[in-house]
Amino acid sequence: MIPGGLKMVIADLTIFPVGAGEGLALEVAKVVKVIKGSGLKHLVGSMGTSVEGEWDEIMTLITQCRASLRGTHRVYYVIKIDERDDPEHSMEHKISAVSR
Amino acid sequence: MIPGGLKMVIADLTIFPVGAGEGLALEVAKVVKVIKGSGLKHLVGSMGTSVEGEWDEIMTLITQCRASLRGTHRVYYVIKIDERDDPEHSMEHKISAVSR
Amino acid sequence: MIPGGLKMVIADLTIFPVGAGEGLALEVAKVVKVIKGSGLKHLVGSMGTSVEGEWDEIMTLITQCRASLRGTHRVYYVIKIDERDDPEHSMEHKISAVSR
Amino acid sequence: MIPGGLKMVIADLTIFPVGAGEGLALEVAKVVKVIKGSGLKHLVGSMGTSVEGEWDEIMTLITQCRASLRGTHRVYYVIKIDERDDPEHSMEHKISAVSR
Repeated sequence: MIPGGLKMVIADLTIFPVGAGEGLALEVAKVVKVIKGSGLKHLVGSMGTSVEGEWDEIMTLITQCRASLRGTHRVYYVIKIDERDDPEHSMEHKISAVSR
Repeated sequence: MIPGGLKMVIADLTIFPVGAGEGLALEVAKVVKVIKGSGLKHLVGSMGTSVEGEWDEIMTLITQCRASLRGTHRVYYVIKIDERDDPEHSMEHKISAVSR
Repeated sequence: MIPGGLKMVIADLTIFPVGAGEGLALEVAKVVKVIKGSGLKHLVGSMGTSVEGEWDEIMTLITQCRASLRGTHRVYYVIKIDERDDPEHSMEHKISAVSR
Repeated sequence: MIPGGLKMVIADLTIFPVGAGEGLALEVAKVVKVIKGSGLKHLVGSMGTSVEGEWDEIMTLITQCRASLRGTHRVYYVIKIDERDDPEHSMEHKISAVSR
Protein backbone atom coordinates (compact mmCIF):
# COMPACT_ATOMS: atom_id res chain seq x y z
CA MET A 1 0.00 0.00 0.00
CA ILE A 2 1.09 3.55 -0.75
CA PRO A 3 2.43 5.14 1.36
CA GLY A 4 3.57 2.54 3.86
CA GLY A 5 5.55 -0.63 3.33
CA LEU A 6 7.80 -0.86 0.31
CA LYS A 7 6.92 2.00 -2.01
CA MET A 8 9.31 2.25 -4.93
CA VAL A 9 8.83 5.07 -7.35
CA ILE A 10 9.97 5.27 -10.94
CA ALA A 11 9.92 8.80 -12.34
CA ASP A 12 10.60 10.14 -15.80
CA LEU A 13 11.91 13.70 -15.65
CA THR A 14 11.84 16.12 -18.60
CA ILE A 15 13.10 19.57 -17.62
CA PHE A 16 14.20 22.27 -20.04
CA PRO A 17 14.34 26.06 -20.42
CA VAL A 18 11.90 27.76 -22.79
CA GLY A 19 13.03 30.81 -24.72
CA ALA A 20 16.76 30.30 -24.26
CA GLY A 21 17.26 29.22 -27.86
CA GLU A 22 16.56 26.01 -29.75
CA GLY A 23 19.65 24.19 -28.56
CA LEU A 24 18.94 22.87 -25.09
CA ALA A 25 21.79 20.41 -24.60
CA LEU A 26 23.89 22.65 -22.38
CA GLU A 27 21.03 23.34 -19.97
CA VAL A 28 19.69 19.80 -20.00
CA ALA A 29 23.22 18.54 -19.29
CA LYS A 30 23.11 20.49 -16.01
CA VAL A 31 19.93 18.66 -15.03
CA VAL A 32 21.37 15.29 -16.03
CA LYS A 33 24.50 16.03 -13.99
CA VAL A 34 22.36 16.56 -10.89
CA ILE A 35 20.55 13.28 -11.48
CA LYS A 36 23.83 11.42 -11.96
CA GLY A 37 25.18 13.01 -8.78
CA SER A 38 22.17 11.84 -6.78
CA GLY A 39 23.40 8.28 -6.63
CA LEU A 40 19.95 7.05 -7.60
CA LYS A 41 19.60 4.41 -10.30
CA HIS A 42 18.80 6.26 -13.53
CA LEU A 43 18.68 5.95 -17.31
CA VAL A 44 19.24 8.94 -19.59
CA GLY A 45 16.87 8.85 -22.55
CA SER A 46 16.29 11.08 -25.55
CA MET A 47 13.00 12.46 -24.19
CA GLY A 48 13.65 12.40 -20.46
CA THR A 49 15.64 10.69 -17.74
CA SER A 50 14.15 7.86 -15.70
CA VAL A 51 15.04 7.61 -12.03
CA GLU A 52 14.24 5.01 -9.39
CA GLY A 53 13.95 5.80 -5.69
CA GLU A 54 11.70 6.50 -2.75
CA TRP A 55 9.11 9.27 -2.96
CA ASP A 56 11.03 11.80 -0.86
CA GLU A 57 14.26 11.12 -2.75
CA ILE A 58 12.53 11.81 -6.06
CA MET A 59 10.84 14.99 -4.81
CA THR A 60 14.15 16.28 -3.44
CA LEU A 61 15.88 15.43 -6.71
CA ILE A 62 13.32 17.37 -8.76
CA THR A 63 13.90 20.45 -6.62
CA GLN A 64 17.68 20.01 -7.03
CA CYS A 65 17.29 19.73 -10.82
CA ARG A 66 15.36 22.99 -10.74
CA ALA A 67 18.14 24.68 -8.76
CA SER A 68 20.62 23.72 -11.49
CA LEU A 69 18.72 26.00 -13.89
CA ARG A 70 19.07 29.02 -11.59
CA GLY A 71 19.07 32.16 -13.75
CA THR A 72 16.74 30.75 -16.39
CA HIS A 73 13.65 32.88 -16.95
CA ARG A 74 11.22 30.14 -17.91
CA VAL A 75 11.42 26.42 -17.30
CA TYR A 76 9.07 23.65 -18.42
CA TYR A 77 8.73 20.32 -16.65
CA VAL A 78 6.96 17.10 -17.60
CA ILE A 79 7.13 14.54 -14.82
CA LYS A 80 5.62 11.08 -15.09
CA ILE A 81 5.63 8.93 -11.97
CA ASP A 82 4.72 5.28 -11.56
CA GLU A 83 4.41 4.27 -7.91
CA ARG A 84 3.74 0.70 -6.89
CA ASP A 85 3.95 -1.36 -3.71
CA ASP A 86 5.45 -4.34 -5.52
CA PRO A 87 8.96 -5.41 -4.45
CA GLU A 88 9.73 -6.27 -8.09
CA HIS A 89 8.84 -2.73 -9.24
CA SER A 90 12.08 -1.53 -10.83
CA MET A 91 13.17 0.06 -14.11
CA GLU A 92 14.96 -3.10 -15.17
CA HIS A 93 12.05 -5.36 -14.37
CA LYS A 94 9.57 -3.16 -16.23
CA ILE A 95 11.70 -3.07 -19.37
CA SER A 96 12.35 -6.80 -19.42
CA ALA A 97 8.69 -7.60 -18.72
CA VAL A 98 7.43 -5.80 -21.81
CA SER A 99 10.30 -6.66 -24.15
CA ARG A 100 9.97 -10.43 -24.09
CA MET B 1 15.30 34.50 -12.45
CA ILE B 2 14.45 31.08 -11.09
CA PRO B 3 14.81 30.53 -8.23
CA GLY B 4 15.01 33.98 -6.67
CA GLY B 5 12.69 36.94 -7.04
CA LEU B 6 9.07 36.33 -7.93
CA LYS B 7 8.82 32.78 -9.19
CA MET B 8 5.26 31.76 -9.80
CA VAL B 9 4.57 28.21 -10.80
CA ILE B 10 1.57 26.84 -12.66
CA ALA B 11 1.23 23.09 -12.43
CA ASP B 12 -1.17 20.67 -14.05
CA LEU B 13 -1.70 17.60 -11.88
CA THR B 14 -3.06 14.28 -13.16
CA ILE B 15 -3.06 11.62 -10.46
CA PHE B 16 -5.02 8.37 -10.59
CA PRO B 17 -4.88 4.75 -9.41
CA VAL B 18 -4.11 2.04 -11.93
CA GLY B 19 -5.76 -1.33 -11.54
CA ALA B 20 -8.54 -0.23 -9.22
CA GLY B 21 -11.18 -0.50 -11.94
CA GLU B 22 -12.11 1.66 -14.89
CA GLY B 23 -14.13 4.15 -12.90
CA LEU B 24 -11.71 6.56 -11.27
CA ALA B 25 -14.02 9.35 -10.16
CA LEU B 26 -14.11 8.35 -6.50
CA GLU B 27 -10.33 8.25 -6.16
CA VAL B 28 -9.72 11.35 -8.27
CA ALA B 29 -12.29 13.21 -6.14
CA LYS B 30 -10.04 12.58 -3.12
CA VAL B 31 -7.15 14.24 -4.92
CA VAL B 32 -9.32 17.17 -6.04
CA LYS B 33 -10.53 17.61 -2.47
CA VAL B 34 -6.95 17.99 -1.28
CA ILE B 35 -6.23 20.58 -3.96
CA LYS B 36 -9.38 22.53 -3.06
CA GLY B 37 -8.41 22.39 0.60
CA SER B 38 -4.97 23.83 -0.12
CA GLY B 39 -6.32 27.32 -0.59
CA LEU B 40 -4.25 27.68 -3.78
CA LYS B 41 -5.88 29.08 -6.89
CA HIS B 42 -6.91 26.10 -9.03
CA LEU B 43 -9.05 24.98 -11.93
CA VAL B 44 -10.46 21.47 -12.18
CA GLY B 45 -10.29 20.16 -15.75
CA SER B 46 -11.31 16.94 -17.45
CA MET B 47 -7.72 15.75 -17.87
CA GLY B 48 -6.06 17.27 -14.81
CA THR B 49 -6.28 20.07 -12.31
CA SER B 50 -4.24 23.24 -12.74
CA VAL B 51 -2.85 24.94 -9.65
CA GLU B 52 -0.97 28.19 -9.14
CA GLY B 53 1.52 28.79 -6.35
CA GLU B 54 5.12 28.93 -5.27
CA TRP B 55 7.42 26.00 -5.93
CA ASP B 56 7.41 24.66 -2.36
CA GLU B 57 3.62 24.99 -2.09
CA ILE B 58 3.18 22.93 -5.25
CA MET B 59 5.65 20.23 -4.17
CA THR B 60 3.96 19.97 -0.78
CA LEU B 61 0.57 19.77 -2.45
CA ILE B 62 1.65 16.91 -4.72
CA THR B 63 2.81 14.92 -1.70
CA GLN B 64 -0.51 15.64 0.04
CA CYS B 65 -2.44 14.47 -3.03
CA ARG B 66 -0.43 11.27 -2.91
CA ALA B 67 -1.31 10.77 0.76
CA SER B 68 -5.01 10.96 -0.12
CA LEU B 69 -4.61 7.74 -2.14
CA ARG B 70 -3.19 5.83 0.83
CA GLY B 71 -4.06 2.17 0.42
CA THR B 72 -3.88 2.19 -3.36
CA HIS B 73 -1.46 -0.36 -4.79
CA ARG B 74 -0.41 1.52 -7.92
CA VAL B 75 -0.69 5.21 -8.72
CA TYR B 76 0.21 7.05 -11.92
CA TYR B 77 1.09 10.75 -12.03
CA VAL B 78 1.56 13.14 -14.94
CA ILE B 79 2.73 16.54 -13.75
CA LYS B 80 3.36 19.44 -16.09
CA ILE B 81 4.90 22.58 -14.61
CA ASP B 82 5.43 25.98 -16.18
CA GLU B 83 7.69 28.20 -14.08
CA ARG B 84 8.38 31.78 -15.05
CA ASP B 85 9.83 34.87 -13.37
CA ASP B 86 7.19 37.12 -14.88
CA PRO B 87 4.87 38.91 -12.41
CA GLU B 88 2.03 38.50 -14.91
CA HIS B 89 2.49 34.72 -15.01
CA SER B 90 -0.88 33.43 -13.84
CA MET B 91 -3.48 30.91 -15.00
CA GLU B 92 -5.93 33.67 -15.88
CA HIS B 93 -3.39 35.67 -17.82
CA LYS B 94 -2.23 32.66 -19.82
CA ILE B 95 -5.75 31.69 -20.82
CA SER B 96 -6.78 35.20 -21.84
CA ALA B 97 -3.52 35.74 -23.75
CA VAL B 98 -4.10 32.78 -26.07
CA SER B 99 -7.87 33.09 -26.42
CA ARG B 100 -8.03 36.57 -27.96
CA MET C 1 -14.44 -1.94 -26.49
CA ILE C 2 -11.77 0.10 -28.21
CA PRO C 3 -11.85 0.44 -31.12
CA GLY C 4 -15.38 -0.51 -32.04
CA GLY C 5 -18.67 0.72 -30.66
CA LEU C 6 -18.82 4.13 -29.06
CA LYS C 7 -15.26 5.23 -28.48
CA MET C 8 -15.07 8.78 -27.23
CA VAL C 9 -11.68 10.29 -26.72
CA ILE C 10 -10.75 13.20 -24.47
CA ALA C 11 -7.36 14.68 -25.27
CA ASP C 12 -5.33 17.38 -23.59
CA LEU C 13 -3.08 19.16 -26.07
CA THR C 14 -0.03 21.20 -25.09
CA ILE C 15 1.87 22.48 -28.14
CA PHE C 16 4.45 25.27 -28.11
CA PRO C 17 7.61 26.41 -29.88
CA VAL C 18 10.95 26.06 -28.10
CA GLY C 19 13.61 28.70 -28.65
CA ALA C 20 11.33 31.37 -30.06
CA GLY C 21 11.52 33.47 -26.90
CA GLU C 22 9.90 33.20 -23.50
CA GLY C 23 6.58 34.69 -24.53
CA LEU C 24 4.58 31.96 -26.24
CA ALA C 25 1.10 33.48 -26.32
CA LEU C 26 1.19 34.50 -29.97
CA GLU C 27 2.19 31.04 -31.17
CA VAL C 28 -0.10 29.18 -28.78
CA ALA C 29 -2.97 31.40 -29.91
CA LYS C 30 -2.51 29.98 -33.42
CA VAL C 31 -2.91 26.47 -32.07
CA VAL C 32 -5.95 27.43 -30.01
CA LYS C 33 -7.50 29.06 -33.08
CA VAL C 34 -7.19 25.78 -34.98
CA ILE C 35 -8.84 23.88 -32.13
CA LYS C 36 -11.69 26.41 -31.94
CA GLY C 37 -12.12 26.16 -35.70
CA SER C 38 -12.44 22.39 -35.54
CA GLY C 39 -15.95 22.53 -34.19
CA LEU C 40 -15.04 19.94 -31.55
CA LYS C 41 -16.07 20.52 -27.96
CA HIS C 42 -13.04 22.00 -26.19
CA LEU C 43 -11.89 23.86 -23.10
CA VAL C 44 -8.90 26.18 -23.14
CA GLY C 45 -6.83 25.82 -19.98
CA SER C 46 -3.68 27.44 -18.67
CA MET C 47 -1.55 24.35 -19.26
CA GLY C 48 -3.23 22.85 -22.33
CA THR C 49 -6.49 22.66 -24.19
CA SER C 50 -8.84 19.72 -23.72
CA VAL C 51 -10.78 18.42 -26.71
CA GLU C 52 -13.47 15.80 -27.06
CA GLY C 53 -14.01 13.76 -30.21
CA GLU C 54 -13.48 10.51 -32.04
CA TRP C 55 -9.97 9.11 -32.43
CA ASP C 56 -9.53 10.11 -36.07
CA GLU C 57 -10.87 13.61 -35.42
CA ILE C 58 -8.33 14.11 -32.63
CA MET C 59 -5.41 12.77 -34.68
CA THR C 60 -6.35 15.02 -37.61
CA LEU C 61 -6.67 17.99 -35.26
CA ILE C 62 -3.19 17.44 -33.81
CA THR C 63 -1.71 17.45 -37.31
CA GLN C 64 -3.63 20.64 -38.12
CA CYS C 65 -2.34 22.29 -34.93
CA ARG C 66 1.17 21.39 -36.04
CA ALA C 67 0.59 22.98 -39.43
CA SER C 68 -0.35 26.25 -37.74
CA LEU C 69 3.23 26.49 -36.42
CA ARG C 70 4.73 26.22 -39.91
CA GLY C 71 8.04 28.07 -39.93
CA THR C 72 8.92 27.26 -36.33
CA HIS C 73 12.25 25.50 -35.94
CA ARG C 74 11.46 23.42 -32.87
CA VAL C 75 8.11 22.45 -31.42
CA TYR C 76 7.32 20.52 -28.25
CA TYR C 77 4.11 18.55 -27.71
CA VAL C 78 2.63 16.91 -24.63
CA ILE C 79 -0.53 15.01 -25.45
CA LYS C 80 -2.56 13.16 -22.85
CA ILE C 81 -5.44 11.02 -24.10
CA ASP C 82 -8.15 9.25 -22.13
CA GLU C 83 -10.13 6.82 -24.27
CA ARG C 84 -13.10 4.94 -22.90
CA ASP C 85 -16.01 2.94 -24.30
CA ASP C 86 -18.46 4.49 -21.87
CA PRO C 87 -21.31 6.54 -23.38
CA GLU C 88 -21.06 8.92 -20.42
CA HIS C 89 -17.38 9.59 -21.10
CA SER C 90 -17.29 13.35 -21.69
CA MET C 91 -15.34 16.35 -20.41
CA GLU C 92 -18.35 17.66 -18.54
CA HIS C 93 -19.15 14.36 -16.92
CA LYS C 94 -15.57 13.82 -15.78
CA ILE C 95 -15.33 17.25 -14.19
CA SER C 96 -18.67 17.01 -12.41
CA ALA C 97 -17.91 13.46 -11.20
CA VAL C 98 -14.74 14.50 -9.34
CA SER C 99 -15.93 17.88 -8.11
CA ARG C 100 -18.83 16.75 -6.00
CA MET D 1 11.21 24.80 -40.85
CA ILE D 2 8.29 22.65 -39.75
CA PRO D 3 6.66 21.26 -41.78
CA GLY D 4 8.83 21.34 -44.88
CA GLY D 5 12.44 20.41 -45.33
CA LEU D 6 13.93 17.84 -42.99
CA LYS D 7 11.57 17.43 -40.09
CA MET D 8 12.59 14.60 -37.83
CA VAL D 9 10.36 13.78 -34.92
CA ILE D 10 11.28 12.03 -31.70
CA ALA D 11 8.28 10.80 -29.75
CA ASP D 12 7.97 9.18 -26.36
CA LEU D 13 4.93 6.90 -26.19
CA THR D 14 3.31 5.75 -22.95
CA ILE D 15 0.16 3.71 -23.57
CA PHE D 16 -1.55 1.46 -21.05
CA PRO D 17 -4.97 0.14 -20.07
CA VAL D 18 -6.66 1.52 -16.96
CA GLY D 19 -8.79 -0.76 -14.84
CA ALA D 20 -7.46 -4.04 -16.20
CA GLY D 21 -5.49 -4.78 -13.05
CA GLU D 22 -2.25 -3.48 -11.63
CA GLY D 23 -0.01 -5.66 -13.76
CA LEU D 24 0.26 -4.02 -17.17
CA ALA D 25 3.20 -5.88 -18.69
CA LEU D 26 1.12 -8.14 -20.93
CA GLU D 27 -0.80 -5.25 -22.46
CA VAL D 28 2.20 -2.95 -22.75
CA ALA D 29 4.12 -5.76 -24.44
CA LYS D 30 1.51 -5.70 -27.23
CA VAL D 31 2.19 -2.01 -27.77
CA VAL D 32 5.96 -2.52 -27.70
CA LYS D 33 5.60 -5.33 -30.24
CA VAL D 34 3.85 -2.96 -32.64
CA ILE D 35 6.60 -0.37 -32.23
CA LYS D 36 9.31 -2.99 -32.83
CA GLY D 37 7.44 -4.20 -35.90
CA SER D 38 7.31 -0.69 -37.36
CA GLY D 39 10.94 -0.75 -38.37
CA LEU D 40 11.42 2.71 -36.87
CA LYS D 41 14.42 3.35 -34.65
CA HIS D 42 13.21 3.01 -31.06
CA LEU D 43 14.32 2.57 -27.47
CA VAL D 44 12.17 0.77 -24.90
CA GLY D 45 12.33 2.53 -21.53
CA SER D 46 10.75 1.88 -18.16
CA MET D 47 8.31 4.79 -18.46
CA GLY D 48 7.69 4.84 -22.21
CA THR D 49 9.19 3.94 -25.55
CA SER D 50 11.00 6.54 -27.64
CA VAL D 51 10.65 6.40 -31.41
CA GLU D 52 12.26 8.37 -34.21
CA GLY D 53 10.62 9.03 -37.55
CA GLU D 54 8.72 11.43 -39.74
CA TRP D 55 5.51 13.00 -38.49
CA ASP D 56 3.15 10.79 -40.51
CA GLU D 57 5.03 7.65 -39.54
CA ILE D 58 4.69 8.52 -35.86
CA MET D 59 0.98 9.37 -36.13
CA THR D 60 0.31 6.11 -37.98
CA LEU D 61 2.30 4.19 -35.38
CA ILE D 62 0.29 5.66 -32.50
CA THR D 63 -2.94 4.56 -34.16
CA GLN D 64 -1.47 1.07 -34.70
CA CYS D 65 -0.45 0.87 -31.03
CA ARG D 66 -4.02 1.75 -30.13
CA ALA D 67 -5.34 -1.05 -32.34
CA SER D 68 -3.19 -3.56 -30.45
CA LEU D 69 -5.26 -2.87 -27.32
CA ARG D 70 -8.53 -3.69 -29.07
CA GLY D 71 -10.96 -5.00 -26.48
CA THR D 72 -9.68 -2.84 -23.66
CA HIS D 73 -12.35 -0.65 -22.07
CA ARG D 74 -10.19 2.30 -21.07
CA VAL D 75 -6.76 3.30 -22.33
CA TYR D 76 -4.51 6.15 -21.19
CA TYR D 77 -1.87 7.75 -23.40
CA VAL D 78 0.92 10.21 -22.62
CA ILE D 79 2.72 11.28 -25.77
CA LYS D 80 5.65 13.69 -25.76
CA ILE D 81 6.97 14.84 -29.11
CA ASP D 82 10.08 16.86 -29.91
CA GLU D 83 10.12 18.07 -33.52
CA ARG D 84 13.07 19.94 -34.94
CA ASP D 85 14.35 20.91 -38.39
CA ASP D 86 17.93 20.06 -37.47
CA PRO D 87 19.59 17.26 -39.49
CA GLU D 88 21.41 16.18 -36.32
CA HIS D 89 18.11 15.78 -34.42
CA SER D 90 18.18 12.11 -33.43
CA MET D 91 17.72 10.05 -30.27
CA GLU D 92 21.40 9.12 -30.19
CA HIS D 93 22.58 12.68 -30.68
CA LYS D 94 20.31 14.03 -27.96
CA ILE D 95 21.47 11.47 -25.42
CA SER D 96 25.16 11.95 -26.14
CA ALA D 97 24.82 15.74 -26.13
CA VAL D 98 23.48 15.86 -22.58
CA SER D 99 25.56 13.03 -21.12
CA ARG D 100 29.02 14.48 -21.71
